[in-house]
Amino acid sequence: MIITKEQVLQALGNVEEPDLKKDLVTLNMIQDIHIEGLNVSFSVILTTPACPLKALIENACRNAISHFISKEAVVSVNMTSRVTTQKNTGVPGVKNIIAVASGKGGVGKSTVAANLALGLAKSGAKVGLIDADIYGPSVPIMFGLEGARPQASVVDGKTRIEPIEKYGIKLLSIGFFTDPNQPVPWRGPMVSTAVKQLFNDADWGELDYLVIDLPPGTGDIHITITQTFPVTGAVIVTTPQNVALADAKKGVGMFMMPAINVPILGVVENMSYFTPAELPDNKYYIFGKGGGQKLASQLDVPFLGEIPLVKSISDSGDAGIPTILQEDGVMTKAFTDMAQRVAQQVAISNAKALGNGAIATV
Amino acid sequence: MIITKEQVLQALGNVEEPDLKKDLVTLNMIQDIHIEGLNVSFSVILTTPACPLKALIENACRNAISHFISKEAVVSVNMTSRVTTQKNTGVPGVKNIIAVASGKGGVGKSTVAANLALGLAKSGAKVGLIDADIYGPSVPIMFGLEGARPQASVVDGKTRIEPIEKYGIKLLSIGFFTDPNQPVPWRGPMVSTAVKQLFNDADWGELDYLVIDLPPGTGDIHITITQTFPVTGAVIVTTPQNVALADAKKGVGMFMMPAINVPILGVVENMSYFTPAELPDNKYYIFGKGGGQKLASQLDVPFLGEIPLVKSISDSGDAGIPTILQEDGVMTKAFTDMAQRVAQQVAISNAKALGNGAIATV
Repeated sequence: MIITKEQVLQALGNVEEPDLKKDLVTLNMIQDIHIEGLNVSFSVILTTPACPLKALIENACRNAISHFISKEAVVSVNMTSRVTTQKNTGVPGVKNIIAVASGKGGVGKSTVAANLALGLAKSGAKVGLIDADIYGPSVPIMFGLEGARPQASVVDGKTRIEPIEKYGIKLLSIGFFTDPNQPVPWRGPMVSTAVKQLFNDADWGELDYLVIDLPPGTGDIHITITQTFPVTGAVIVTTPQNVALADAKKGVGMFMMPAINVPILGVVENMSYFTPAELPDNKYYIFGKGGGQKLASQLDVPFLGEIPLVKSISDSGDAGIPTILQEDGVMTKAFTDMAQRVAQQVAISNAKALGNGAIATV
Repeated sequence: MIITKEQVLQALGNVEEPDLKKDLVTLNMIQDIHIEGLNVSFSVILTTPACPLKALIENACRNAISHFISKEAVVSVNMTSRVTTQKNTGVPGVKNIIAVASGKGGVGKSTVAANLALGLAKSGAKVGLIDADIYGPSVPIMFGLEGARPQASVVDGKTRIEPIEKYGIKLLSIGFFTDPNQPVPWRGPMVSTAVKQLFNDADWGELDYLVIDLPPGTGDIHITITQTFPVTGAVIVTTPQNVALADAKKGVGMFMMPAINVPILGVVENMSYFTPAELPDNKYYIFGKGGGQKLASQLDVPFLGEIPLVKSISDSGDAGIPTILQEDGVMTKAFTDMAQRVAQQVAISNAKALGNGAIATV
């Protein structure tokens, strides 16, 4: 038998992208079809390398060829990706800006932001992280970069700041430019100017995702960033306590305000339960159970996962190495799953914004 | 040999009350001296039944008689107490008002207030508890009193509310008068009136300590209570995180304001470490270590203790029975020690306010 390109496209036209609810061919996700006898090879261009449905989609493609063309076909699928974008983010070369926010402090927002950025990078995406928490920047400590100073040069009369590269991502923190022992007594407008420079004056290059660690609460910086740079979506971090959930709701409310209008990608529940490293099968729901999930369903936004707290009594904190890079246990898995779900929501949000039809791949 | 009353008083004049830095005789703490041959008996009137130095003082008394009078003397010491007071609290029969406050919600302030009240009662003191957290009253749930309604009668044209008695203390909560399913949309002045009624219109009887569970933060209720009723002192509850400590500082600042001017009895650190019931010897410092102690020393106020978090995975929360009554483990000990230290600070504060000399015992 002779297999044709048209047969392959027809077969794969039966495979639906589960999130985008359209078939792969309509979505323009099939490329590089090569046929030699019974050997069929093609590429599937996912909307993100962190796609949690990667294995599922690959399987569905194999089954489609086998079912609609021939059980004898030898199928080789190249799963690849090109991260989508929906609009000009205001930062040249940056496809998506993801804001990480929380209603109140102390919920682990910066930890989630850092591990989200690293989780996306681990999947193969090009990622940057801006620590815009001007009153309590934590990137310098979390990445072991205390005292680091980014290089800055003046090109054609314009300042260019070089982000610092560590663990495969590009980083800038307002903490790189301030003295950690001095409080920052800047007022709103000064803060806004400083934060805008982290976006505008830095040499970010090509990025699939730029993750922003916002200060807790709702304030000047939130308004400045969302009004200056079209943020793709916001991730809300909370802990399971009722008090934290009430504050998280306020945080979500801010992004939904007409003047800000940033899509909510979903809710991440941090410190969901405690697991002693010495008793890895035990889950202690210290702060209550299921609060984050309940909040997400009340707000009708996706639940992006629960992050447990795993600690050993001999654990010194390992400052300078984010969790996702430290171990290969439950926390790494939780952060990796969360990063995949965030990437998934970005892809869905982009697809929705672009309307139906093919995925724009800038 | 013949032992005289004067010899006994002279001997006991060498025993110093460690907190008040004066001897027991000067402090008028020795009473009911009886002598029969070599048998010497007397009472020591402590300033609180919850005195953590009880055993130490008793020992010192025995040693003083043995050392200054005769090794042959058979000493019988009756350790008793009469709780001191320094001023009219504004509530008839109530000797001391202790306010429990926190800079932010979610730190376990109500848990500390309830266990403080029960810990004081366990030592033998007469104790009341007012839950003034109008926006989130927790006493009804913590004491298993949902749906309870205190009896009210009108005597001589004046309303008298009967506090509910449970676990040996008298209780009133704003939650007894509101529907738990309805938000309380009261404004500042209405709230103040309601809270004042819990003090003024209730039949508290004779109380050594009236513990007030204040709402988190700083607001109308705090100002109303502290300006209407002379509060003996405030206990500040915090958790070890830096964010919580910063908020706790603000809370302390409020009590120190000239318009409020309530002495700070000290800082309690809640959720200091986590101990799984299944691994009782392990301490997991989830939120950092020593923050409460550091805060207390920065503010130059006493550190009243760290309360651990002990939980079993089979633990359903035991709502309705406060921790101090549930088990006989580390948490009960932590709360009991804390209650003793608070009582100690009240006694010291009262002694200071009364100036030197004898302890006033109303």
